[in-house]
Parts: sequence; structure tokens; C-alpha cells
Amino acid sequence: MAGGWRRRGGGALAISIASVLHSVTAKTSTGSDIELDERYLITHRIDSLNILLYTFLLILTVVTIWIFKYRRARYLHETGLAVIYGLIVGAILRYTGDSTSLRHMRVVEGPSEDPPYTHNAPPDTLWLRFATANNSQNRTYAYDFKGEIIGTLENEIVQKATFDPEIFFNILLPPIIFTAGYSLKRRHFFKNLGAIFTFAFIGTTMSTFVVGGLVYGFLLMVGSTITFIDCLLFGALISATDPVTVLAIFSDLHVDVNLYALVFGESVLNDAVAIVLSSAIESYASTSGGFETSAFFLAMLNFLWTFSMSFVIGSVMGCLTAILTKFTRLKDFPLLESALFVLMSYSTFLMAEAAELTGIVAVLFCGICQAHYTYNNLSGESRLATKTLFELLNFLSENFIFSYIGVSMFTFDHHKWDVAFICIAFVAIIVGRFINIYPLSFILNIGRRPKIPVNFMNMLFFSGLRGAMAFALAIRNTSSDARKSILTTTSLIVIVTVILCGGLTTQVLSWLGIPVDVEDDETHHLNQFRPIRNGPGSEEGGSSADAIDAAKFEKAWLFRIWSQFDIKFMKPFLTNSRPTLLDTTPLCCAPLARLLTTTEQLTRDGDPLNDDLPLDDSLLCTGGVRTSLDPTNKQSVTNPVYEGDLGLGTASSVGTRVSVAGTRGHQL
Amino acid sequence: MAGGWRRRGGGALAISIASVLHSVTAKTSTGSDIELDERYLITHRIDSLNILLYTFLLILTVVTIWIFKYRRARYLHETGLAVIYGLIVGAILRYTGDSTSLRHMRVVEGPSEDPPYTHNAPPDTLWLRFATANNSQNRTYAYDFKGEIIGTLENEIVQKATFDPEIFFNILLPPIIFTAGYSLKRRHFFKNLGAIFTFAFIGTTMSTFVVGGLVYGFLLMVGSTITFIDCLLFGALISATDPVTVLAIFSDLHVDVNLYALVFGESVLNDAVAIVLSSAIESYASTSGGFETSAFFLAMLNFLWTFSMSFVIGSVMGCLTAILTKFTRLKDFPLLESALFVLMSYSTFLMAEAAELTGIVAVLFCGICQAHYTYNNLSGESRLATKTLFELLNFLSENFIFSYIGVSMFTFDHHKWDVAFICIAFVAIIVGRFINIYPLSFILNIGRRPKIPVNFMNMLFFSGLRGAMAFALAIRNTSSDARKSILTTTSLIVIVTVILCGGLTTQVLSWLGIPVDVEDDETHHLNQFRPIRNGPGSEEGGSSADAIDAAKFEKAWLFRIWSQFDIKFMKPFLTNSRPTLLDTTPLCCAPLARLLTTTEQLTRDGDPLNDDLPLDDSLLCTGGVRTSLDPTNKQSVTNPVYEGDLGLGTASSVGTRVSVAGTRGHQL
Repeated sequence: MAGGWRRRGGGALAISIASVLHSVTAKTSTGSDIELDERYLITHRIDSLNILLYTFLLILTVVTIWIFKYRRARYLHETGLAVIYGLIVGAILRYTGDSTSLRHMRVVEGPSEDPPYTHNAPPDTLWLRFATANNSQNRTYAYDFKGEIIGTLENEIVQKATFDPEIFFNILLPPIIFTAGYSLKRRHFFKNLGAIFTFAFIGTTMSTFVVGGLVYGFLLMVGSTITFIDCLLFGALISATDPVTVLAIFSDLHVDVNLYALVFGESVLNDAVAIVLSSAIESYASTSGGFETSAFFLAMLNFLWTFSMSFVIGSVMGCLTAILTKFTRLKDFPLLESALFVLMSYSTFLMAEAAELTGIVAVLFCGICQAHYTYNNLSGESRLATKTLFELLNFLSENFIFSYIGVSMFTFDHHKWDVAFICIAFVAIIVGRFINIYPLSFILNIGRRPKIPVNFMNMLFFSGLRGAMAFALAIRNTSSDARKSILTTTSLIVIVTVILCGGLTTQVLSWLGIPVDVEDDETHHLNQFRPIRNGPGSEEGGSSADAIDAAKFEKAWLFRIWSQFDIKFMKPFLTNSRPTLLDTTPLCCAPLARLLTTTEQLTRDGDPLNDDLPLDDSLLCTGGVRTSLDPTNKQSVTNPVYEGDLGLGTASSVGTRVSVAGTRGHQL
Repeated sequence: MAGGWRRRGGGALAISIASVLHSVTAKTSTGSDIELDERYLITHRIDSLNILLYTFLLILTVVTIWIFKYRRARYLHETGLAVIYGLIVGAILRYTGDSTSLRHMRVVEGPSEDPPYTHNAPPDTLWLRFATANNSQNRTYAYDFKGEIIGTLENEIVQKATFDPEIFFNILLPPIIFTAGYSLKRRHFFKNLGAIFTFAFIGTTMSTFVVGGLVYGFLLMVGSTITFIDCLLFGALISATDPVTVLAIFSDLHVDVNLYALVFGESVLNDAVAIVLSSAIESYASTSGGFETSAFFLAMLNFLWTFSMSFVIGSVMGCLTAILTKFTRLKDFPLLESALFVLMSYSTFLMAEAAELTGIVAVLFCGICQAHYTYNNLSGESRLATKTLFELLNFLSENFIFSYIGVSMFTFDHHKWDVAFICIAFVAIIVGRFINIYPLSFILNIGRRPKIPVNFMNMLFFSGLRGAMAFALAIRNTSSDARKSILTTTSLIVIVTVILCGGLTTQVLSWLGIPVDVEDDETHHLNQFRPIRNGPGSEEGGSSADAIDAAKFEKAWLFRIWSQFDIKFMKPFLTNSRPTLLDTTPLCCAPLARLLTTTEQLTRDGDPLNDDLPLDDSLLCTGGVRTSLDPTNKQSVTNPVYEGDLGLGTASSVGTRVSVAGTRGHQL
């Protein structure tokens, strides 16, 4: 099977469990297939645009109703407003809509004036004229295109237990990925940005090629006919790790936050890398028959373009939400605020999908931006509401997917048990994980001042569980035998790693001698930002700050530049936290800076609940904004709302503090 | 069109906005139609069962993982558990599944061994063998049944803006109705139970027949061919009021709580009555051609059966959730608790649908039970989480529906503008509402001690806005011209009443002289329950209590009996609140009572956040459990979590207290 092709029909909300046929995929190599492929893309885009339309209508309603409530106008309720906006948009659609039409085919006689069906691709709808014996009147019934028939159909309850693969991408994965971004412990994530990026980008790509190459080589030896592209695709999708079990135990046992950040950060980003990488491989396959250099570079460009544009859409939408929540007093109406937050976040996904980018990547970076900026502007109720909502959605979606992986092992009829493939796959993922972690860690350790200790590397190696993303990518296309083997192998790997690695995590932690019940130093730094309120330059920093300054100089330059920009411009502009733009920009920009500073921002007393965490100590030493790291200032503030788990999920939300010697040494 | 028929295919989650054809309905009068009808019912039931399966899997996972966490077993994470349960259920399905099979038809040549298609109804799937000019290899594509073709197809974006009507019933309405039940101010609801039941059951039925009769009579005069059944159906669906706009203003302006309870209670119950009534009318239509007495009684029985069985399922599931949350320590893990709560509530809907009852009614009573019992057992986090989640879902669903009503006025191609119908419909709903409110109020006032004042009647009359439920019922079936006119008229009525009545509410309130900023006396009674902790009979009640006792005697006897049972048995059994069963049951039952009393219940200090509101003062005077209504005991406790709006939705959650003369007099 040469023509890998992403089935994207069915649309962003197109759940059709009533569908008789699941796995609806088609392979493309001829003209008709390319036509069909384009058709699917158009359908998917129109679906996304359609839901986007309603999402925007709701966003418009939310913002307008805020203005009404703000002005105490009671003559129009949000439902009335929704109706009116709906009427306007409906009229616009009706009278300006384009004329994209669907291809119909009439089977059993159609009216003679109907033009005969001449397209190369199968029709989008079939109209069946149907006459029964006891009913002389013919009736016309419509049938919708579902996909190509390959498997055999079994009993209905088994078929029904199988969902449209599109559900994973459009309904279940977005909240999981968004929640990952939203609950990211950003300080530790950004501190380890270099290592995380290395593992996620370089490591995942290496793992893809190693796994793909090993599987291809071995299967060639045993005489299989699998193509290299299929093996590479398997390598890409199986490189998305999902150490949810490990992370839950880390969080339970209070394992070192930097190890947590490395494992979590890598898994979040390699999901995004894997989805874009597998798309790029598929599009590479559809543009070339063999292995051509130009097609390879095109695929690389495709990868970079998709990833970066999805990143841009996600970030821009996150920042837009921050601006909306900063410059309106929407927080007086927490329900409106929460609704706006949810709608903006989901519309990010839809926009990226409508633009033929990757919604999952967009929604991940949207989540990070929402947490980094918007979260500061939200009311206490909305913070809790959004955190709780996404935690709950995440929990339900995740467990649903894992249940489904179990059920589908038996009910999904596109499984193919290829023992050779399964055996080599298990070996290959271990080798791939090894090559991802150890060489890169040693290279990273050359440049890193606090090195990654060997037991951390072992733990990172062990945390290579596979989960929801790998399964979702595998089940998306099961049209060929190779793809069926990929699905079966992926399902097995997910089940084995989740049960085995998940079950052994506690033991492995103690075997590796990784300290547990480590104090999270994040809380110490919560209040570091406070002195800044006195204005820039008010504290010129002591010798300790300078020493730390020097130590931090070895830190990732990319991160340093970004965090300077973030602290001086982005945060003052996008959030209600201190310092304001008035404090951070030169005097000449004062009028503009004043315009972009809200009264709330000026009058805010910067309590820890309202202020975001500073990303890093070094942030405080930039551009005249300087503070001493006086130990007396290190107040310990417990902030249950701010922490990733919200008090939901762990029994004891206030961490037990046990001093472990060498904790600071482990800080990466 | 004689054969009204509920289209239920597509399934509980069967959203198919990718569908080319929306409004997929069929009318039934012949054998083939009845076969098709049955087919839809089977499909819908299998869909419901299927989602129910996954919901149960998740419930099982949640409960088991609690046991694991409780025993501090870390070797199995919930995802691992979900996989294992999934494998077990998948294997069971695979090897024990029934053999219900779908009807296929192969068009353009099929293999010769395929038996010819002989069914009376159109096939469920079409398999199209398709060969293109440049591709000699034939491929088989599957097509899914969508429905009968009636309208003409327009451009794709317009078609796509139209959703499958099933979405309303399976996705959008359940959270709205559940939230209505969950946020019901039960004390005032139960106090006005008699009046609410009268308006909702007798009033709605009267309104159905009055509207149906008026429309039929007038249309016969102008020479229309509409049937009486269609008119009756219109009467039933248009009798579901949705005064969401009015209620928001009531809540904003702190209008008398009893007026609020009457308007809200009626609208909640008449939604349920309307949906069951319209089903009964449709099933009546399908069993008889004309108006037969036996069929009429059958329809009445159908109505009573559906309503009461849905009520039973909803209540039992609500109580089951209460038991689960009471007898486990699930509250230590708020995320699990919230997830269980959501899953149990949604499975209530699915179970009722799978049992061919009405999920909407089940979910309403489930919501009331969850609020009345389960809410007491939840942790603080889960209380907030569930309230917030359902408020948000309610907000989004409601506004989505209203947006959709607006958009579909232009994009849905099954509209039919029948001016005569529209005119008489507006007149008829006014007459119907008049007959619903005024005569019944006068009759109710004969037996009621605090009468319903005339300005309250006027306000009730004015609160007859139509909304989501009426629209969802109207759009469910648009196969005939009459049904299309019904849809158009209903949409118009919704739009006009929401904008007009919604906009005029504040003015009407002042015209009618209805006092605003009325103090909610609920908070006064929050702590009445406390003395009971001293044990039964510890306070034998003063003369004031006796006087109130006497006054309450005139209250609804049904309510009195129920509340005695509730306070003596249900609440002690199902919740962690005081008194316990040990206090309320005779001594002989002590061993059993001890078994059903948790340690938490015995040690609970009954702070207002943990204790539910007593339903009524009179509750305190039953069975030796007696307390004085000493005014010093009437502490005012603000309880932002408990109140219906959670602090979300209104700017100032703490009500301004303005004493209005005669407030107590208005108490109904």
C-alpha cells in the first residue's frame, strides 16, 4: 500500500456511531483517489467551518451580553441575542453562500432530466428509488458515503461498539491535549525547555526512524511485503508517549519536579510532534512512489509549516482570549467568562482544522497560553470552573479511550495479528526509546550545568508508555493489511506498557533510588515577584542575586531572550498582573502603555492568587527589574487553585514536605 | 399525513452534521413503513445500549479505582483498569453478542451468491461497486441510510449549517433539563407542588387541546387539509414553556421566591409533560386512522406508563448515586466523585432511552434526586464542580439552540410559511395560556390558604415564552407539509416570545406591581435543623410551632405524607446528613439502622454547608422530631455554593435585602 492518506471526512463533530461501517478509509494512488481525497478535505473543512460558525456566534453572544449586563440593560437576554445573531448569520449564509454542490447518483431509475453520473470518484450521496410489493408509490431514500468496504460485517452490537475513528481526533483528544497544556507546571517546563525540546523534537524523530528502520529490516528478512513508508508511519505514531500512569504516581509520591517536568513536557510535545510527523509521512507517501530527495524535503517543509502555523494559531487565540478577558470586565460574570474561555479554546481547534493544519497542536499551545496569560485575568470562580471542567473532561476522555482500546481488541474487525511484526515492534520501541533518551541526555549534559543524573535517564527511559495518541493515530486508517497490523501492534503495545510499566512504576522508582516526597520549591518562589511592585530599580539586588545571575547565564539562551520579552512586554500587555507596561517600557511609550494598562492592573495589590508565577529567578534580573533573593522573602504560600491538580485528583492536595538532601542538586 | 412517527434513529450520540441530508424522517402508513419504524427503534436502542456500555465501564472503573486508591494500591492506574475492563467486556461482546444483522443491498453488480434483496423496507446500507474509466479495478463503497428525500438540496455550506435533529434530544437537551432539576430550589418547589402539578399536568393538557382545537377549527374554515392529530401535536409541543429570560430577570431583581417557584416549576414539568404527551399523540396516530376511544385510552395509558416509568428510572438512579457516594469514601477523591456523578446522570438518560421511555423525563427527576440526596454526600470540590459544569453546559447548550433557531430560519429547507396557520397559532397560544392559568388559579385559590394574587396570575400568563423544547419537538419530524408548517410556526413563536416577552419582563413586573428585591426567606430556615441533633423529642416545641403546625395542615396532603417519609427514612438512609436512621426509626430496627448509618453521619456536626435545607417547617413537627421556631434560631447564613446560581451567572451573588411590606402575605 503506497498511498497513505488521512481520512478526514466526517467532520469535527461527525460522530456516527450509528454508522454501519467504521474504519472508513481509502487509499489513493490514481486520479479518482486524489479526487476523493480532495473531496474529503473539502468536506472536513466545511464541517469545521460550520461548527466554527456556531462557536463564533456564541462568542459574539457572550461578549455582547456582557456589554448589556454591564450597562444593566435587561431588555435583552442572552437567548434573545443568540436568536437575533442567528437570524443575521442565517440570512447571510442563505443569500451569500457559495455554490459548492455535492455529487449525487441516482440508483434504480432517476428522472430522465438528471445528468448521468460522470465523476471519477464515487458519489457523495446515493438516492435510491425504492418500490415495495405492497406499495406502488416509489419513494426516494438518501444514502451517505461511508467509505470503502474491506472487512466483513459481524453482528450489530459488535459493530456498534466500534466508534468512528474521527471521534478520537475531534472530541476526545482535544480536551486531553488542552488540559495537558493548561495544567503544565510552566516554571519547571520552561526551565527544562532545552532538554524537553531535544527529547521531543530530535528524540522523537530519531525514534521514528530507528523504529521504522528496525521493523522494516526485520520484516524484509522474514519475507514480509510491508513498505518502508508504513514502517516509518508506525515509527512516528508509536513514538508518542503517554506516561499518564507514571505521572499520577510521580504526583502522588512527590517525585522531584524537574523529573516530572521532563517526563510530562516530553510526552506533551512528542504527541504534537508525532501527529504532525505522521501527517508529513503520509503526505510524502502520496506525492511520491519511492524515496525521492525533493519529496523528502517537501515533507520536512510540510512538517515545519504545519507545526509552526498550528503553533501560531494556538498562541494567537490564547493571547486573544487574554486580551478579551483583560479589557472587558467579563469577570463580573464568571459564567460568561468561563463560557468564553471554553468557546475560544475549542474554536482554536476548529480554526486550525479548517485551515488544514493540526488542531491538536494548536490546542496544546492555546492551553499553555491560556494558563500563562488568560488565567491571570480570570475571576476566582472561572479559574476553578475551567480547571475543574478540563480535569473532568480529561479524566473522562482518557478513560474512555483506554476502555475503548480494550473493547476494540475484540470487537473491531480490522485487526490483523502479525506475530513477526508484534515481536519486532516490541524490540524496536525499546531500542528507539533507548536511542531517544541516553545519547541525547549525554549530549545535553555537556552543555547543562545541573546535569541529568543517570537514574533520571533510566526513569525517562522507563516512562515510555504508549497511550491514547498512538492508538488514535493507528485506528485512523486501517484500509490496508499493513495498517491493520499497525493497529493491532499499537493496541497491544499500549495495553502491555500501560499495565506493565504502570504497575511497576513505584518499584522502579525505589530501585533507581529516585527520592520521593521531594519538596516542590515552586511555592518558595511564589512571592518573589512582590518587590517589583515598588517600581523598577527599587531594589538593586545583592551579591546573592548576582551570583545566581551568573549561574543562570549558562541557561538556554532561547529561553532567556523569550522570558525577557515575556516579562517586559507580553505579561504586562496581556494580563492584569504587575508590573504594568508603564513600568517596563521606555518613557516615550507612556501614552500607549497607559492605554494598554487597565485600572485593575494599576490598583491590584498583587496577592499570590492573582499573580502568576515568575518563570524563573533570572527573570527578575532583567532590564532594571531586579529583586533580591532575600531568604526572608521566600514565603511559603499554598495555592490549591493554582496547582495543576486543583485539589481534584489527589487525596492530599497540600504536599507533605520532607527535606531530602541533595534536592537542589537534582534540579536540572 | 396520518402516520406521525418518531424518528429515533441516529442514536444517542449520533451526530452527523457531515450528513448530506438533514431532516431525515419518514411517514408511515404501510407495512414497509412499520418495518422501517421498528428498524429505527432497534437502531436507537442499540445505540443507547452501546454508549451505556461504555458509561458503565467508566462507572466500574471509577468505583474500582477508588477501592485501589483507598487501599493505597499504586500498581494499577485507572487507565490500566479501564483497559482491562474493556478487554473483558470486548471479549464478552465478541463471543456472546446476538446476531442482529443489518440489511444490505448491493447496487451495480454484486456477487452472484448474494441473496437478492427482498425486504419491504429500504436497506440499511447500500454497497456500491464502482469502476472508473481510468481504473479497471472495481471498488466497493458503503453508503448509510439517511432518510427520505423530500426537499431540494442547496449549496453545501447551507446544508451543513443544519444539524441532525437528534442532536437536540441526545446532546443538548439532557444537560439543560438535568440542570433544571439539579438547580431547583426544592423547598419552594415542594411547597407549591400542588399548584405546579396542576399547571403542568392539567394545564398543559388543557392547553394542548385548546390550541389544537382552535388551530384545527380555524384551518378547516379557511380550507386547509391539516389533520386533527397534527393540530393536537402542535398543541402539545407548543405547550412546553421556557421562560428562561423571565427567570433570569426574576433572579436578578429578587422577585418573590414563590412566584419564581411557580414559573420555574411549571416550565420544568411542562417540558416533561409536553414531550411525553407528543409521543403519546404520535403513537395514538400510528395505531388508529381516526379518533377511536380505545386508541385514545391506549394513548393515555402510554402517556402514564412512559411518564411514571421514566420517573422511576430517574429517581432510582439518583438514589443509587446517593448510596454509592454515601457508603464509599469516594469524596476523598473529588475528581472520581465528580466523574461518577456525571456518568451516573448520563447513564440515566441512556437507560431510559434504551428502555424506550423518555430520557428527558428520567434525567429531570434524576437531577432533582441528585440535588436532594447525593449533593449532601459530595465533597465541597465536587459540589462546586458539578454545579459549575452543569451551569456551563446548560448555558452553552441553551444558547447554541437559540442561535440555531435563528440560523435555521434561513438555512433549513423544510420550512413552510403558512400565514393562516401562523396567525391562528399566535391567537391560540394566547387563549391556551389564558385557559391554563386563570381558571386553574381560581380553582387552586379555593383550597389554598395563601392565595395566588391576581398580579401573580398575570405574570404567570405573561411567562409563557416558548423555547428549546418546543423547537426540538417541532424539528424532529418535518416529513409532511403540516409538520413543516408546524416547524416554521414554532420557530416564529419562539423568536417572537423570547425577544418580545423577554424584553418586556422588567416593565411588566412594574406594571403589575410585583415587588422586587424581596428577601428570600430560605436563608432564615437554613439552620432550623440543628436542634434535631440533640435527639428526638429533646425540644417539645412551643406554642408558636403548634400554631404554624395548624396553619400548615391545610397544605397539600400529598406533600405532607411524602415529606414525612422523606425526612424519616429517605434522607437518613441516602445521605450523610442528620438525623440518622438511628434517630428516626423504632428501636427494633436499630441493628439495620446502624448498618445503614455511616460513621461520618454520626460524627457530622451538621454545619449549614453540609446539611441540606429542610423542605418545610412542617417537617420538623413530625414523629416526635420537633423543634421550636424560636426567632433567635433563625440565623442568616449565606451559602453561595448551595444557591442555584453558584455565584456564576449573577453579578452579586449575595442578595440585597430590602424589606417589602406584605412579603409574607405573598407567600403562596
